[in-house]
Amino acid sequence: MTDHDLAALQHRLAEFAAARAWQPYHTPKNLVTALSVEASELVEIFQWLTPEESARVMDDPDTAYRVRDEVADVLAYLLQFCAVLGVDPLAALAAKIDRNERRFPRPAGPGSEPPAP
Amino acid sequence: MTDHDLAALQHRLAEFAAARAWQPYHTPKNLVTALSVEASELVEIFQWLTPEESARVMDDPDTAYRVRDEVADVLAYLLQFCAVLGVDPLAALAAKIDRNERRFPRPAGPGSEPPAP
Amino acid sequence: MTDHDLAALQHRLAEFAAARAWQPYHTPKNLVTALSVEASELVEIFQWLTPEESARVMDDPDTAYRVRDEVADVLAYLLQFCAVLGVDPLAALAAKIDRNERRFPRPAGPGSEPPAP
Amino acid sequence: MTDHDLAALQHRLAEFAAARAWQPYHTPKNLVTALSVEASELVEIFQWLTPEESARVMDDPDTAYRVRDEVADVLAYLLQFCAVLGVDPLAALAAKIDRNERRFPRPAGPGSEPPAP
Repeated sequence: MTDHDLAALQHRLAEFAAARAWQPYHTPKNLVTALSVEASELVEIFQWLTPEESARVMDDPDTAYRVRDEVADVLAYLLQFCAVLGVDPLAALAAKIDRNERRFPRPAGPGSEPPAP
Repeated sequence: MTDHDLAALQHRLAEFAAARAWQPYHTPKNLVTALSVEASELVEIFQWLTPEESARVMDDPDTAYRVRDEVADVLAYLLQFCAVLGVDPLAALAAKIDRNERRFPRPAGPGSEPPAP
Repeated sequence: MTDHDLAALQHRLAEFAAARAWQPYHTPKNLVTALSVEASELVEIFQWLTPEESARVMDDPDTAYRVRDEVADVLAYLLQFCAVLGVDPLAALAAKIDRNERRFPRPAGPGSEPPAP
Repeated sequence: MTDHDLAALQHRLAEFAAARAWQPYHTPKNLVTALSVEASELVEIFQWLTPEESARVMDDPDTAYRVRDEVADVLAYLLQFCAVLGVDPLAALAAKIDRNERRFPRPAGPGSEPPAP
């Protein structure tokens, strides 16, 4: 991963919206809705693909571009949503992984049956 | 934002899935689908709220917990999706902000009409 | 509502897909994914609107066309999903309304507090 | 398909909401958001399944119940959304199939390559 800093990107997004007077649109409800719309645009790339085809989407430069573009949109709205509500997404994820490690203990060894993911 | 490192969290997620033998489930198609399902679970918290109520969700501790929990799930699947496809989400977002700054030039001054966000 | 029959439309959709050899793509998983993608395209029309603006979308002919077009897509994938799984959507909805009438009893009279919708 | 009439179900849904004073919540924006959330709950059932497993979901009675329940929720919100905006979903779908028959002409015969669905 590059050294672009998440907080710096979040700051650029806030500056960008402020310069265009978009804050009134950026209610938590609208931002989370936009996040889900962008997530679906990412899903759309995969909707008719087999699991195997889905693993090869980056082989085609145009599709790879679309994937990166939609990933950026999802992350942008997630960061803006977190900014307006004062949520720290990295702390939230770290806490969730901690909880999941207690909830789904590491299996004893090979051959043990994993739970559903 | 805390100093939890995005790459370190992505690594913990990969370890977690590997220890439970979940990788066969983690096709790009399944991960992006799970991402959109989690985004909708975040939307669900807001679906009947007015814009004003949506700005106050963090005032209620239980709702605040749910918001952080769903943010974590969205980010977890986004990072896992990016990992299996070799996408750098921070570089993708930085490139997208660059493109948007060219596509939506900063308006000349106060009173200029902003485009739709 | 017009007298177009739901079963007849479902039959036209099946004919349409069969004539183009699309059935291999029409797994339940793919169809439900496409349903959710189309639902998000409908959401996209509303994402930046206030509640009041959202009530007036049909005043603009172009937006009204988009709304009808996306409603058609959502219904098309819902009917195709139900067809491949042998689900009767109208019977499912009738049964659900029956259950909801028991789960959320009609309030005693004016002034009683409604539950969340 | 059963002889439950779509218009009659739409009427029952409107009665149900009116008796509970839920109309203020039922803006087009909220209803379409709820539609997309329910579509994602239907997706959730399938998210980790292979295409083959997804074709057998109705073999398990509990899963079959969940599928029918979520289909009902999707259809309920679609009908309520259409009712508040005055959209006829069956006419919209019939018009869309007409357009698609012009846009994707029936292929000449066996062996011709179908377009993406």
